[in-house]
Amino acid sequence: MTLWGGRFSGKLDPAAWALNASIGFDQRMAQQDVRGSLAWARALERAGLLSAEENVQISAGLQAVASEFEQGSFQIQESDEDIHTAVERRLGELIGQLAGKLHTGRSRNDQVATDFRMWLLDHVPALDGALRSLQESLIQRAESDIDVLMPGYTHLQRAQPVLLSHWWLAHFWPLQRDRQRLKELALRTSSLPLGAGALAGAPFAIDRQALAQDLGFHSPAPNSIDAVSDRDFAAEFLFCAALAGTHLSRLAEALVLFCSAEFGFFALSDAYATGSSLMPQKKNPDLFELARGRTGALLGDLINLLATLKGLPSAYDKDLQEDKPAVFHAYDTLAALLPVMANALQSLGVRAERMRAAIDPGMLATDLADYLVAKGIPFRQAHALAGQAVSLASDRGMALDQMPLEMYQSLSAVFGQDVYAVFDPRQSISRRSALGGTAPVAVAAQLAQARALFAE
Amino acid sequence: MTLWGGRFSGKLDPAAWALNASIGFDQRMAQQDVRGSLAWARALERAGLLSAEENVQISAGLQAVASEFEQGSFQIQESDEDIHTAVERRLGELIGQLAGKLHTGRSRNDQVATDFRMWLLDHVPALDGALRSLQESLIQRAESDIDVLMPGYTHLQRAQPVLLSHWWLAHFWPLQRDRQRLKELALRTSSLPLGAGALAGAPFAIDRQALAQDLGFHSPAPNSIDAVSDRDFAAEFLFCAALAGTHLSRLAEALVLFCSAEFGFFALSDAYATGSSLMPQKKNPDLFELARGRTGALLGDLINLLATLKGLPSAYDKDLQEDKPAVFHAYDTLAALLPVMANALQSLGVRAERMRAAIDPGMLATDLADYLVAKGIPFRQAHALAGQAVSLASDRGMALDQMPLEMYQSLSAVFGQDVYAVFDPRQSISRRSALGGTAPVAVAAQLAQARALFAE
Amino acid sequence: MTLWGGRFSGKLDPAAWALNASIGFDQRMAQQDVRGSLAWARALERAGLLSAEENVQISAGLQAVASEFEQGSFQIQESDEDIHTAVERRLGELIGQLAGKLHTGRSRNDQVATDFRMWLLDHVPALDGALRSLQESLIQRAESDIDVLMPGYTHLQRAQPVLLSHWWLAHFWPLQRDRQRLKELALRTSSLPLGAGALAGAPFAIDRQALAQDLGFHSPAPNSIDAVSDRDFAAEFLFCAALAGTHLSRLAEALVLFCSAEFGFFALSDAYATGSSLMPQKKNPDLFELARGRTGALLGDLINLLATLKGLPSAYDKDLQEDKPAVFHAYDTLAALLPVMANALQSLGVRAERMRAAIDPGMLATDLADYLVAKGIPFRQAHALAGQAVSLASDRGMALDQMPLEMYQSLSAVFGQDVYAVFDPRQSISRRSALGGTAPVAVAAQLAQARALFAE
Amino acid sequence: MTLWGGRFSGKLDPAAWALNASIGFDQRMAQQDVRGSLAWARALERAGLLSAEENVQISAGLQAVASEFEQGSFQIQESDEDIHTAVERRLGELIGQLAGKLHTGRSRNDQVATDFRMWLLDHVPALDGALRSLQESLIQRAESDIDVLMPGYTHLQRAQPVLLSHWWLAHFWPLQRDRQRLKELALRTSSLPLGAGALAGAPFAIDRQALAQDLGFHSPAPNSIDAVSDRDFAAEFLFCAALAGTHLSRLAEALVLFCSAEFGFFALSDAYATGSSLMPQKKNPDLFELARGRTGALLGDLINLLATLKGLPSAYDKDLQEDKPAVFHAYDTLAALLPVMANALQSLGVRAERMRAAIDPGMLATDLADYLVAKGIPFRQAHALAGQAVSLASDRGMALDQMPLEMYQSLSAVFGQDVYAVFDPRQSISRRSALGGTAPVAVAAQLAQARALFAE
Repeated sequence: MTLWGGRFSGKLDPAAWALNASIGFDQRMAQQDVRGSLAWARALERAGLLSAEENVQISAGLQAVASEFEQGSFQIQESDEDIHTAVERRLGELIGQLAGKLHTGRSRNDQVATDFRMWLLDHVPALDGALRSLQESLIQRAESDIDVLMPGYTHLQRAQPVLLSHWWLAHFWPLQRDRQRLKELALRTSSLPLGAGALAGAPFAIDRQALAQDLGFHSPAPNSIDAVSDRDFAAEFLFCAALAGTHLSRLAEALVLFCSAEFGFFALSDAYATGSSLMPQKKNPDLFELARGRTGALLGDLINLLATLKGLPSAYDKDLQEDKPAVFHAYDTLAALLPVMANALQSLGVRAERMRAAIDPGMLATDLADYLVAKGIPFRQAHALAGQAVSLASDRGMALDQMPLEMYQSLSAVFGQDVYAVFDPRQSISRRSALGGTAPVAVAAQLAQARALFAE
Repeated sequence: MTLWGGRFSGKLDPAAWALNASIGFDQRMAQQDVRGSLAWARALERAGLLSAEENVQISAGLQAVASEFEQGSFQIQESDEDIHTAVERRLGELIGQLAGKLHTGRSRNDQVATDFRMWLLDHVPALDGALRSLQESLIQRAESDIDVLMPGYTHLQRAQPVLLSHWWLAHFWPLQRDRQRLKELALRTSSLPLGAGALAGAPFAIDRQALAQDLGFHSPAPNSIDAVSDRDFAAEFLFCAALAGTHLSRLAEALVLFCSAEFGFFALSDAYATGSSLMPQKKNPDLFELARGRTGALLGDLINLLATLKGLPSAYDKDLQEDKPAVFHAYDTLAALLPVMANALQSLGVRAERMRAAIDPGMLATDLADYLVAKGIPFRQAHALAGQAVSLASDRGMALDQMPLEMYQSLSAVFGQDVYAVFDPRQSISRRSALGGTAPVAVAAQLAQARALFAE
Repeated sequence: MTLWGGRFSGKLDPAAWALNASIGFDQRMAQQDVRGSLAWARALERAGLLSAEENVQISAGLQAVASEFEQGSFQIQESDEDIHTAVERRLGELIGQLAGKLHTGRSRNDQVATDFRMWLLDHVPALDGALRSLQESLIQRAESDIDVLMPGYTHLQRAQPVLLSHWWLAHFWPLQRDRQRLKELALRTSSLPLGAGALAGAPFAIDRQALAQDLGFHSPAPNSIDAVSDRDFAAEFLFCAALAGTHLSRLAEALVLFCSAEFGFFALSDAYATGSSLMPQKKNPDLFELARGRTGALLGDLINLLATLKGLPSAYDKDLQEDKPAVFHAYDTLAALLPVMANALQSLGVRAERMRAAIDPGMLATDLADYLVAKGIPFRQAHALAGQAVSLASDRGMALDQMPLEMYQSLSAVFGQDVYAVFDPRQSISRRSALGGTAPVAVAAQLAQARALFAE
Repeated sequence: MTLWGGRFSGKLDPAAWALNASIGFDQRMAQQDVRGSLAWARALERAGLLSAEENVQISAGLQAVASEFEQGSFQIQESDEDIHTAVERRLGELIGQLAGKLHTGRSRNDQVATDFRMWLLDHVPALDGALRSLQESLIQRAESDIDVLMPGYTHLQRAQPVLLSHWWLAHFWPLQRDRQRLKELALRTSSLPLGAGALAGAPFAIDRQALAQDLGFHSPAPNSIDAVSDRDFAAEFLFCAALAGTHLSRLAEALVLFCSAEFGFFALSDAYATGSSLMPQKKNPDLFELARGRTGALLGDLINLLATLKGLPSAYDKDLQEDKPAVFHAYDTLAALLPVMANALQSLGVRAERMRAAIDPGMLATDLADYLVAKGIPFRQAHALAGQAVSLASDRGMALDQMPLEMYQSLSAVFGQDVYAVFDPRQSISRRSALGGTAPVAVAAQLAQARALFAE
């Protein structure tokens, strides 16, 4: 059975059928399809197109269909072109010809757009929760690693010492932005296509405000043509997913570095590492590598939909069917990655002594310049002097904090014995106490802010 | 002069210099750089790092630099690596060594992120205005074309008749979503990096709340490492641009179709068409084609930045410099396309008679099914009967509205003489009066809603 | 069982295991994995690492494993991390501890790269064949539609009349280029990684030339580090697939247009069209729309791999595992689309009279200019005169071939009575007889060339 | 002046003009445009459409135009829509009305496609040369660093020792593949569109074989419609550029790592490093970071063109104009990056002692397993024993080569005193002497092969 055979005499070529059928992936929206149909039946009753008794029967039938899906007993048949067809076919088997009244005034165009939005609205909270779990993991690490000093990097060169807690929190905020974007996206998604028909609107007195309320949508879509052709919400979701994936990838990239023998900042737990079939000594950060690797596919999903949309005129074209594999794939990817990342972070062993040892005195050169600034030297000149000190120390093969005072004074008479106090990284960190800085007091405030936002 | 030569003895290779220098594109942020420096000088004064007198001198110097940029008299020199260097170099020429105090506690990392966000915040309103102009153009067309009937399409096959006004408005709402996204993006962009230093925060008592207020930012960025490495705002802008471009492309695709001889729905004005160097009769919709063609580059800009970000660990890496060419290009593309689109829409001649003629009676087959529904036949059965009527008419080479009653009755006795009333497209349109539908009453309501939102 | 547990005391977290395991998709390379192992066993024997007897036993065991895969009786177990592990695990069950000798000197890094290249080399011919089928379909159409005239378009505006055969053949050549690219890609893919070990090469006297010959590879990869990290062949395949998809999409886009009521050039067969659940009259070109729609995902697959590769240093990283889902997906997409397209083309009904009717006299304006050129007027001036004729005819609401001679002569005295002969489209077509042109003689030559190349 | 004004009465809107004009970027093809026109004039003469005298005059005029471009004295005027218009306009100024004969039988559609292919064919050798320079730089490094041992990595974990020369050569082969792809692409590009007219072919007796020969093309394009709409060569170039960029990015990523303090394998020269405006000690690998960062834009260029092509039907549409900015940008990016990379490699200081120190005995664990294999233990069991040895040593805080024999023998009695000979990395390297391996003898052979191929 198809829902459209009336005017056709020939049958679809089997290979074409296989290409055309979407039941393989859209059955994932079975519950949404039934819920949408239940609400549509109520709307038809309100509009006088179904009697109360008919609605009761149809609704009972739909509930039975939903139960079959829930219990896994629903039998998809080869002739079920898509989930809408499957549900209506089964409904007919259960309640007879009355099932044929359900599709009154509705098209698969507005139906699928509704199902898909409902599916997304149903799953955004789960994704938000998964992002939140990773945030919680970061906060916990920030709390427990509060006393650990590490080198901060720019250009992958040692730059300035920071608190490890501060570094963990640097990965909290991008996820907070991801969650905010998802929230805004959800509101935009909550615009109901149902009642738009194929493209021209519903020909009966359907109360779309009531229908939207019934289905928990914010409001009915304001234009029926836009309602069936708009896939902005899917593109926006794919962008949010790609950017969230990018955040995971950046964190993972850093962790892969920090788990290398050369950095040696973290020790991998056996629960989140794998070995080599050839090299017995290997312990590999596969999970972090996969977080990077799978993000490539999230970028692909995004470009997939945008490239497809770009070529279409407005209104519904079959190409739009391909929105779902992309969105489902992106969702599944993040839903698999996020909890593993959250747990993997907890399992990392912190090698504080390696981190501390990596803070060489050269990283305090900015503090050396600031020391001169405090003595009244303009920063630009102070920067040059500190640079010369670095150069001089390097030429002599000395560390900055080992260089004798007279060598400093050969550069500028302003240098005094107090210069050596500069080279305490904990002091350096503590000086950066302005809001958002790495000083313990600022990090404590940041943690409080993160905790508060996160609890929202 | 570079801002970093102190520890270096050799000079950068000239080809490497050319590759490295960003002045070619970042000079576009000259005004933002100066404004940011003015605020930073005030922050330094508040923190006691500049005297009031020093701030007055520095500010006067910066104002002079800004004037030179405004008047086009600023001379960029080959040694100006970037806009920050150029401004500080010139300031030094104007006010001497005191200029060297300006960079105290600041890094180009937080400075460039601040400049770039300011530039974006300065330009979002212009883009919003350009989107608004196109919306206004669509509203005007919807108002003036209110009486025109056209065929609505799905799968590029004639589907159901709609009002041309309704079709124009179908392109209004995507732009409304674009504007909403830009608004949200602007709020997220309004998080101030300045005071984050290179990555660890400001080592002096900089009041970043006051600094944010001074520069008109919503709030200071909460984490200094994130502050210098976050380019989410740029990626989000590029996504908004790519999606807005996609909307233009979809509208343009439809207009190219509708301007073809075969559709013939619109006549191109000479002001928005070009000809052929070979074929004297040609009148081509180049502008609409370019709206499609340039959207490809917007997708490219987006993938450019995402692919780059994906590979980076957190914190500042030089790769981030490449965010600006992408964002500038995307902005320029939309800023050029939108006004031309807005005007080109106005210039189109509507060929209402061609549109009306394209509404063949077959497009009323859904209404035929609905006619049977009104007579008590379940929709699914009604759909099949209408399909058979289409098939029968097609076999006999007749239009649906020409097929004699007995042929209808050969399919079902329910058909009566009143069936012919179905085939009036204006009636069909009027029936779709539910919210968001194409009926004149619904379109009038939609227009009012559009006008109201638009005025916000 | 994993192949790497020796040094590990803890177990992998179950969610991490699920994320890490690739057996879900790499089992598709089972036959290649076994074939590669058979050749490796022979290489080990040649190098004196297996006795002849041992090789016989291992080979018999591997053959048994291959049979199980072929017959579908192979039982994948939850602990089978990947296809390599599954095969070695099963081999051990069949032949005991001797199975443990197979992996001598081999790593999964060189093994998987070999399997994957073999898989691709095994499947390129099938893809080539599918492209060839579509080419054959185009040639057949070109042969049977040789007498049909149609309007040729540029900018979707009617440009010049062409033969429908010529238009069909315009889609033959891009596929020829696709096939050429695949052929070149196959040669590049035929570089054998096996023997590269994890990255440093084989520590035993493995004869990699003989091994390459044994496996049918062109040559052994020249550098062991490159051998395990090179995924150029996969990226190149994804590009070939994306471009081939783009060719399908462009053809499909044209066919969707030409199947619209407005163009009406082709009639869809029931075997390659679908209907609407709401609108009984609809007959939609879904298959062509899907050819466009699925190409988006091919672009996504390409960008997926490139973005992932871009961020990796040389040598093997786990991210590379994600190359396979992308390549398999791209292959499957084309393998499903191409035969349907080939058959769908055959099923199209040509509406020659609609095509002929769409050739309006304005399309002969270039011929009008050429007519003037033949009378000695420089082309640029001739073009302007023809343009004025078009404009004059348009003002008077006349077709060019209906405009009286005196009106032509009002533009230039050169016009004579013979001007009306210009407006025969068949003449216009015949004049374009230079190589590659649309004249019947040129198209016949082109067809012969296509047939010859195609047969290669 | 436009080349198409005849039938137009109104003028193009100025903003539309600005959007439409391509002279801003296509003037880059001025020399190609002139050369194409010179050949076209000769073809017209051969076809009897120009007299010998006329050809002489036109050719002299075109030569004069070419000289003006070469000397920089050509004045582009605001009314020059594109390079074709500019050249014809100037020719008219120089030789009068005869210039109007040049465009006979030609369209800008076949002209621009010809110019663009010529431009690409002119520039592929330069790109090939730039790739070759980088290869030469790699070969030189491989030759001079032949005695240096370094740790090889997989998953960024220390895997097995390799020769630095071997690692350098691992980056030679991808570039060789890039060059091979460019060569194949050039042959495919060498298909001449000229003579295809707007789309239907040349209406005069143009000898396109002779024309192709005259312009140095391999052959004339076989189908005029395909000839004007085919942009495969541009897409293929953009793919080659994106993949070459990816190779640069991967090399750069590795170098950024190896220049970090933690790896410390290479010392940056002042000529290829930059500093920090804030941190006086910093020395940053900006050039390598830019090689990564700019590759993002190469991916963007590729997706740009593919997304645009995907939506177009066959034949020329204005969207195709956007192919040129993408190709020019990709070319310029690589042309700027490659020589800097080649020189930067030469400038790197090798810190051989750091590399040697990073080879810890654990990296010989595979050799330990191979030692057991040599004693007759199946590899899988040997791997497990070696893994247990790693684990045991790690538990005791010992290096593998420090662990006493009795501890080894507690794992297996097979271990003998000779086990300690395993831990010499130079021995390990030498054992990998099979073709493509890291042993000095194999690397020497590889170098010879590289030198030979490279010289081709």
